[in-house]
Parts: sequence; C-alpha cells; structure tokens
Amino acid sequence: MNDYIYGKNAVLEALEKNPKRISKVYISQTARPCNRLKKIKELARFNSIVISFTNLNSEKFEKEIPHQGVIASVAPVDYVDFEEFLEQKKDGYRKIVILDGVQDPHNFGAIIRTCACSGYDAVIVANHRSCPLNATVEKTSAGAINHVPIIKVNSLSGTIEILKKSDWWIIAADAHAKDNYFEIDYTDMNFALILGSEGSGITKTLMNKSDFQIKLPCNFESLNVSTACAVILYESVRQILCKNQG
Amino acid sequence: MNDYIYGKNAVLEALEKNPKRISKVYISQTARPCNRLKKIKELARFNSIVISFTNLNSEKFEKEIPHQGVIASVAPVDYVDFEEFLEQKKDGYRKIVILDGVQDPHNFGAIIRTCACSGYDAVIVANHRSCPLNATVEKTSAGAINHVPIIKVNSLSGTIEILKKSDWWIIAADAHAKDNYFEIDYTDMNFALILGSEGSGITKTLMNKSDFQIKLPCNFESLNVSTACAVILYESVRQILCKNQG
Repeated sequence: MNDYIYGKNAVLEALEKNPKRISKVYISQTARPCNRLKKIKELARFNSIVISFTNLNSEKFEKEIPHQGVIASVAPVDYVDFEEFLEQKKDGYRKIVILDGVQDPHNFGAIIRTCACSGYDAVIVANHRSCPLNATVEKTSAGAINHVPIIKVNSLSGTIEILKKSDWWIIAADAHAKDNYFEIDYTDMNFALILGSEGSGITKTLMNKSDFQIKLPCNFESLNVSTACAVILYESVRQILCKNQG
Repeated sequence: MNDYIYGKNAVLEALEKNPKRISKVYISQTARPCNRLKKIKELARFNSIVISFTNLNSEKFEKEIPHQGVIASVAPVDYVDFEEFLEQKKDGYRKIVILDGVQDPHNFGAIIRTCACSGYDAVIVANHRSCPLNATVEKTSAGAINHVPIIKVNSLSGTIEILKKSDWWIIAADAHAKDNYFEIDYTDMNFALILGSEGSGITKTLMNKSDFQIKLPCNFESLNVSTACAVILYESVRQILCKNQG
C-alpha cells in the first residue's frame, strides 16, 4: 500500500529532512493559509515535488487521521543519491537505465524488475515527468525496487553531462535510429541507456547528448517500452557472457 | 469492450456455427431447465468451453437485453484453425509461440504484441488453462490481435506431436535448463517456443516433448513471462538478421 504522511507538522518535517522520498503533496482546496502551509509549498516547489490542490476526502486517504488540509505521499523505498552512486567502486563496468518521461507505473515497475534480473546497477528518473515510486510500481517490480538503486535527479540533462565527464557512454533507444540494438559493443564501457515514453520518445536535448542511437527492428507499430528495455538489457548481458566465455 | 451474446437461441446458434469464438458461457443459477439449455451445456462441454453458473445481474452485462438465463462472451477476433495454419506456405522458416497456462490477460496481450513486432507467425493456446481473448488482451496487445493469428487447440500435447511430425522443432523456456537462450541456433528450422505460467512453468508432459530447453540468466528471482518471451523472440530475430547480413 501507499504510505501517506498526514498533517502540516509531519509533512513539513519530512520535506525538511528527506524531501527525495516525498513523491507528491496534496493540499485541500479549503486549507486555511498560514505560515506552515506557505513553507510547505515553498519546500515542495524548491524540491520539484508536485503539489496537488484537491479534495482530501478521497478513498485512498485514511479518514480517521487528522490532516489539517495537508497530506504527502511517500515512496516505499529511499531514493539513492546520484553522487554517492557515482563514487561507488565496482569490479568491471557499470550499466544503468535512464527513464525520460516514462509515467506508467506498470512500465516503471517492469523495467525495475528487468534491471534486477539482468544485473543492471541503477535506474535514474527525473523529478518531473516521471512516475512516483508507489505501491503499483512496487507490486509490478515483484519486490525488485528493494534490490535496484533508484536515483531521482532534478535534471536528466545535467546528470548525463556529469556521467559523460566521468567517462560513461550514453546510448539512446530511438525508433528512427540507423543502427540495430545488437550492432554496438556493450562489453567495454560504463554506459547509460536512455528510454523515452511510449508516446513522445526521448526529448531532443537528451537525444543530442547521446553517443549512440539504437533501434529495435519492428514489424508492427512499436514495442512497449518495458519490452524494448528488456531486449536491449539482455543483449548487453548476452554480449558480456559470450565475451567472458571466450 | 467485451462482446456478449444474449439469450438461448443466439447462444445456441453461435455454439453450433462458430464455437471457437465463444470464450465462456454464463448460465443463471435460476435458469429454467429446458431442451435448449441442455443442448447449450452439451455443446459447451463438447467444445471445452468453460460454463459459469452465476448471477447474471453483474455490471458487465447489458441490463436491457433479455437473456433468458444464458449469456456467452465472444472473442473480439476469430481464432485461426491449426490445420489451416500448418498447411500455409511461407518463404523461409516459420516460428511460433505456444502458451502453456498463461492466464493473465496483460501477459497474453503483451506477448501477442511482441509476436507482431518481431514477426512471429502465430500464438497457440489451449482451450483449458488459458486466457480468453477479451477486451483487456486486445488493449494490452495494442491492436496486435488483429495481426497475429491466434490458434486455440483442445490439446497442446497433441498439437506438439503434429508439429514434430511436420518437422518443426520444439523449444521450452525453463528456469532450470542448462543452456542459455542464446546458445541455440534459431536460423535453420521451423520452431515453436513453449512458455509456461509464471507460477508453475511448463507442464511435464510438454517439457518431455521438447527438443531444446533454454533459460535466461537471472540475478533476481524470475522474469515476467512476457519479458522473457520478448528477450527470446528478439534473440531469434537478431540471429536471423545477422545471418542474412552475411
């Protein structure tokens, strides 16, 4: 189930101490303005957390807990810090997935599960235009959200710049790319694979920063994003296993 | 949306003329016994169609259409006949998927979509222990149910025997297999890939009839069945494209 924090003081404390774990702040349309409410709005905006002005009598909230017009939803696991992740050492190369605008919780959960199965090291999402880590994601991931570090950043573009400066290579999945996904060598680099939303694909800014663009051959419209992700992730696994076997 | 046929005469006619398209027959617990009802039950059983004795005031049925205690649900597309499919000629080899007990409509729809994208020739399911072709499958397949022939058979075991006699090879996906999925050559044979349900895998009878058993390397519990399916289907596509490119 989703976790919620009820009431001005509790939400304010969470926003001050662990803002990355807050996925959304709900404020009642009839909430009385006051200094604490003002500060909640400021902190939410500062941390790029979505604020929803809504009716708090929804079924998803507990009716018996006083909320003073403010409720926040909390991710079921902690997000991992990008800088900390980057500094970690590992034998061999590292491989991660960057999700650009993937907002469907089933796709998000399925991608996290596939990352766990294929031994990927992390999933990076943006504060905006991304799916919050909620109960649906947790369930679809079959518990894998507890095994794969999920990193939330303010800017995917800035994050990609940092990765490139740290000698990572950036691969973009794009239906219009020239090369097939199996035509690049995944075995001798740290790399990040960017996947876009099913509707609009990868944003131009990120696409322009990528070193490789790859496509999946497709006889019918397009693949589901979590399916395409699995095919590419396992192609990298195949190449690495084949190389290690000599 | 799901299609339904209402009333004894209409259901009886559908059972006589196109029984393969009927996925389920609902009979009211208070339906008056009569010859037509008896015949409906006989025909449903003869064609291995599930009969549900239930309350017909459910929201999924139209309240204003008289049903005389009998409603049948109809697949949104026609199933294709196995013998007809087998006799079709095609340049090059053919490849199909056999689903053994995959009952989740989202997985079924996702697999059909991936089959369309990767150019697979058909999906075979059994009358029993399979998911009916319903509105959820249609939606999850993104319309691909209109592009990939879906074949429903009474016995998967018998169907596999016929395929083997027609020089098809049978590949079973099994978490306990010795070989990785990329260690067999998909390029020079007609083959059928069997996938089992997430819970119980492939039934022993079918596993014993398979020529190859393959697994996916996995670092975390298990992959979703539609994800595993996509990885294997695209490995065969990769091998065929690489071979054709010389």
